[in-house]
Amino acid sequence: MQISVILAHPNPQSFNHAIAETIIAELNRNGHQVVFHDLYAERFDPVLHADEIPQDASLPKEIQSHCKEISDADGIVVIHPNWWGQPPAVLKGWVDRVIRPGIAYKFLEGDNGEGIPAGLLKAKAALVFNTSNTPAQREAEAFGDPLETLWKNCIFDLCGVKIFHREMFNVVIASTAEQRRQWLSAVREVVRQYLCSQGTDRILDVRQH
Amino acid sequence: MQISVILAHPNPQSFNHAIAETIIAELNRNGHQVVFHDLYAERFDPVLHADEIPQDASLPKEIQSHCKEISDADGIVVIHPNWWGQPPAVLKGWVDRVIRPGIAYKFLEGDNGEGIPAGLLKAKAALVFNTSNTPAQREAEAFGDPLETLWKNCIFDLCGVKIFHREMFNVVIASTAEQRRQWLSAVREVVRQYLCSQGTDRILDVRQH
Repeated sequence: MQISVILAHPNPQSFNHAIAETIIAELNRNGHQVVFHDLYAERFDPVLHADEIPQDASLPKEIQSHCKEISDADGIVVIHPNWWGQPPAVLKGWVDRVIRPGIAYKFLEGDNGEGIPAGLLKAKAALVFNTSNTPAQREAEAFGDPLETLWKNCIFDLCGVKIFHREMFNVVIASTAEQRRQWLSAVREVVRQYLCSQGTDRILDVRQH
Repeated sequence: MQISVILAHPNPQSFNHAIAETIIAELNRNGHQVVFHDLYAERFDPVLHADEIPQDASLPKEIQSHCKEISDADGIVVIHPNWWGQPPAVLKGWVDRVIRPGIAYKFLEGDNGEGIPAGLLKAKAALVFNTSNTPAQREAEAFGDPLETLWKNCIFDLCGVKIFHREMFNVVIASTAEQRRQWLSAVREVVRQYLCSQGTDRILDVRQH
């Protein structure tokens, strides 16, 4: 399977990068083809301009390439820190520019943009991994954990990706090395469960011997 | 009073621009000093890099200026379309870069970033105006209207701005000119109510004669 992995964190030494490396290694171990974008490292331009908005707009080569990859993906993984209950701007702009009409969703005939669109992504599952310095209880009570709604309802469900799972690791700034090792184990488990079901069986078999 | 008005829409002919112009005219009419940023027109760079994250980071002049303005603001108005239940990336990046520790909030002594910060903004009220092509009922039922939580709870409440009001105008793409005129009247009313209380009285007095 082809899996798109999208990472947005400004620090190459971050735990977000460790999560991405763990995911990529696990996907490769299971024979998947990984298409990886470190949006900060690639200096992705997140600003969607007016001329790119129409469905038949002429797109820069870089955006065409992102669009083809996300159309072809059998699975999608997104990794980012929780900044104001939202992704960093560079990732928000990847959504604005790549999750386009005609690529990720379409309006039905006679709908000028006010109706319910149909999802076009063929990916079977989407996974989101977040890091946060807000304790889980405060995140739920004070903020309502908007990242869950944003990725699950507003984006992936609308685009036709019905299997969704998200993990939020907190509080990263107060975590121990052992805690972070456990979190990376949890990352591997989630990747195996949602994107490598045959791989899971094989790995479990090997472990039993 | 000094009021910061922040606009993010890629099309200068947009209804978002009409909202911003209406707000600025109403604020000027009431004797306020308006600090206005059309983030698209100004080509604001929304990407927060690692070297800007520490509280004592050396900031580019443009960001220093934005920070001083938002610190000095007695009121804040934000205008943007609903893109995926979130602001456009250019505005998300304005939040990432300008709503900084030491400017908009601070961590209490002994808190390394895992605790509950104290708000620092002196603005009395924040207003958010959104446009959307999603009908209100679908927005509430399918998506849970995340923009309300993002601006009210995650951003302004955390930064100490306790009076908050938001208007979402939908469905813009199917609206008539008369509907949009009514929406602009509603914009003026909200601005008067929250940012020009003396102005409201004066205007009502004039109208009664």
